[in-house]
Amino acid sequence: MSDAQEHKDDLLEEESTAPSYGLSDEIVQEIQDAIEREDAAFIHDALEDWHSADMADLIEQLKPKLRLPLLNIMEGRIDPDVYSDLDENVREHLVDDMEPAEIAAFLNELELDDAVDVLENFEEEEQREVLNEIPADERGVLQEGLSYGEDSAGRLMQRNLIAVPEYWNIGQTIDYMRDTEDLPEEFYEIFVVDPRHHPIGTIPLNRAMRSKRPVEVRDIMDTEQKLISVDMDQEEVAYLFQQYRLTSAAVVNDDGALIGVITVDDIVDVISEEAEEDILRLGGVSEDDLFGSVMTTTKTRFLWLFVNLLTAIAASVAIGLFDATMEAIIALAVLMPIVASMGGNAGTQTLTVAVRAIATKELTAANMLRILSKETMVAFLNGSVFAVLIGIIAWAWFANVQIGLIIALAMIVNILVAAVAGMIVPVTLDRMNIDPAIASSVFVTTVTDIVGFVAFLGLATVVLL
Amino acid sequence: MSDAQEHKDDLLEEESTAPSYGLSDEIVQEIQDAIEREDAAFIHDALEDWHSADMADLIEQLKPKLRLPLLNIMEGRIDPDVYSDLDENVREHLVDDMEPAEIAAFLNELELDDAVDVLENFEEEEQREVLNEIPADERGVLQEGLSYGEDSAGRLMQRNLIAVPEYWNIGQTIDYMRDTEDLPEEFYEIFVVDPRHHPIGTIPLNRAMRSKRPVEVRDIMDTEQKLISVDMDQEEVAYLFQQYRLTSAAVVNDDGALIGVITVDDIVDVISEEAEEDILRLGGVSEDDLFGSVMTTTKTRFLWLFVNLLTAIAASVAIGLFDATMEAIIALAVLMPIVASMGGNAGTQTLTVAVRAIATKELTAANMLRILSKETMVAFLNGSVFAVLIGIIAWAWFANVQIGLIIALAMIVNILVAAVAGMIVPVTLDRMNIDPAIASSVFVTTVTDIVGFVAFLGLATVVLL
Repeated sequence: MSDAQEHKDDLLEEESTAPSYGLSDEIVQEIQDAIEREDAAFIHDALEDWHSADMADLIEQLKPKLRLPLLNIMEGRIDPDVYSDLDENVREHLVDDMEPAEIAAFLNELELDDAVDVLENFEEEEQREVLNEIPADERGVLQEGLSYGEDSAGRLMQRNLIAVPEYWNIGQTIDYMRDTEDLPEEFYEIFVVDPRHHPIGTIPLNRAMRSKRPVEVRDIMDTEQKLISVDMDQEEVAYLFQQYRLTSAAVVNDDGALIGVITVDDIVDVISEEAEEDILRLGGVSEDDLFGSVMTTTKTRFLWLFVNLLTAIAASVAIGLFDATMEAIIALAVLMPIVASMGGNAGTQTLTVAVRAIATKELTAANMLRILSKETMVAFLNGSVFAVLIGIIAWAWFANVQIGLIIALAMIVNILVAAVAGMIVPVTLDRMNIDPAIASSVFVTTVTDIVGFVAFLGLATVVLL
Repeated sequence: MSDAQEHKDDLLEEESTAPSYGLSDEIVQEIQDAIEREDAAFIHDALEDWHSADMADLIEQLKPKLRLPLLNIMEGRIDPDVYSDLDENVREHLVDDMEPAEIAAFLNELELDDAVDVLENFEEEEQREVLNEIPADERGVLQEGLSYGEDSAGRLMQRNLIAVPEYWNIGQTIDYMRDTEDLPEEFYEIFVVDPRHHPIGTIPLNRAMRSKRPVEVRDIMDTEQKLISVDMDQEEVAYLFQQYRLTSAAVVNDDGALIGVITVDDIVDVISEEAEEDILRLGGVSEDDLFGSVMTTTKTRFLWLFVNLLTAIAASVAIGLFDATMEAIIALAVLMPIVASMGGNAGTQTLTVAVRAIATKELTAANMLRILSKETMVAFLNGSVFAVLIGIIAWAWFANVQIGLIIALAMIVNILVAAVAGMIVPVTLDRMNIDPAIASSVFVTTVTDIVGFVAFLGLATVVLL
């Protein structure tokens, strides 16, 4: 047993005491050291039989300058799936250094949807160079894949599937499957089509397997099926799969003919991506930039911060209207951020629930008023409690009961406004076909900041001056 | 054709011009009206052949007082799956009015994981009453399901599966499948086990189907498989399925024996749930409370607002240290929220990316320092640009170049601090085994508020007084 092998077993053993899959920090460090001392034998040994997804994670974790050296050491031993598993930013960085022919060879090994994913991230010219290196028939399939809109069903689908006429029996179907070479690794259903190649039914594989050879497919097929049009947005496709617990579904073209199949394992990634998009957008980040360059990340985050600067200045202008009041009673300047901050948080709670409920189609025109009135009641209850709390605190702090009453009233008003804005803003954006996740929070916090400052300082001006 | 039928076709036709699945607001309104005028014939007709998931959505959308009347009208026509598709809050409300025997009859129709889901939400006594109505052997299975920790693999798994010894051939396997009655509706793999019932390999159904009857299972099985221990957390299970693109995986007990199978369609829900949990927690909401009662929602949101009140007061205390400075130059009170707000937003951007990257295991000890230094550089670049912008604006606004310089400097400092806190806080919480989604934002915005106010007002005190 080599040292490397022994060491690898040690690491695996360590892992087995805490049975968690994925990479350990230790192994990443080990590999990093081995690349630096150019110890190819250790690396070949340690990375033997690794799953492509773990290999992709390893490459992402490495210092950027060690990534290409690792690929060179592993040349000819890397599963091409690694490239579709890689983070987009890291992949772009790597393929920059590859020849078009090398890239074409990799694409050839990938499943269609993965290959299209890799290709679509290239510049147009690079894309053409790579496509030129690919045999004509496969090139055609790839080009067709690229022709569907990004995030459309056409991009997600596999073209290889089993479709049989309804007058066949199970025996014919099995023989046909045995004779068909180019099947996807995983599939779960047999499609039944009419003479125009329109899908008319499906048979789950397990049912087909449990049926005797003479059984006719039309007698055991399910005729109820959800069809997906080739240009349906992937978010809608994911909704269908989740809603109806589909494992696979037929994709049809404009004429209704069967042209592909989408399976649930492709949907798993879509669901993660769409949820991630919502999380990032709510946080003011336009895309996953963890592995992006400094300049790209700076640029993508700039816009959000700029919009926020404008709204912060608007809030300051509102405060500026009351400078005489604050000059007279400086306690107001000390206390004013509290009202704005509580409103911002209450508004964020409501808008988070609303944005999520819109995404899952739980919040609709039918129940919108009911939920708005519930949110208002919740805001009134919590607002009242916090009004009493902050009123007492402010009174005690500045020994002034009027300031306590003013901040209490401003607090209730702002938390109520927060609930209404937190519900109305995302619903309105959604009606205007703007993603509510991307813009709701800036609108809502602008409202709660300005209302918070104006209600508090305005009341104080009326009552105290 | 009845009026109702004709109308239903109209609605369906309308939908087909905008081919989107799910409920339309019109149909919800129609059904609501029909329940109110007790038009059972219309409802029976309109809801015929509806998928359980759409039916559950309809019930959720209805006014609460119309939900039970609908169930009474639909009695005997409701697919029991509707109950596992329902939102937890709505379901609790409904089963409150059912007899234990009725509930038991429903559970009987559900798949095991769904039945356990429904049961686990009952109070202990209600659970016992329902279980008493269930035949002993099925009760045992349900009780075992309940005995696994919430969110564990044991809860997700199906117990029905096909496991065959390695010395069998495909013909024997197919015959065994034909003779086995109690199989799940969907399954994708045949498991091969040794005499101790330990899993040693898998055969995808499609491969089994394409093999001739005399082929031995040991010759075509995949021996590489990811095993899931029965107490693994569902988040970890979902990670495994995503990472290794699994469609199904064997669940083993402490002795390594095969006791169940988890399929990818169950994982789709877990991924949504886990992502939803992160979204809601980042927004300061502990759970999906869209259909929760006013009191429950008020209580669950209270804690977050209370924590925020404390941090807002802490920020006010910091401001209070500089009341003399503000009294002398009231422009400072007008401008101070801008610095805090920009820091809060920059910090939220960084922490959102960090929280997400921790959840997807992309941010680890190995690359943490590298990414922290990148975030710092991004913060420095954006901070510099916004410092210049706000510096010029403040200078112009108050005709005071010193105030412009002070706010510019405070801005750079706060955006830099925001980046560091936005990265360090979630990583530290994660190391302490606290979910970074739940607590990061309150820590980070407390830091950026206090640093923002203190840097700005403190600098002003030193320079201007």
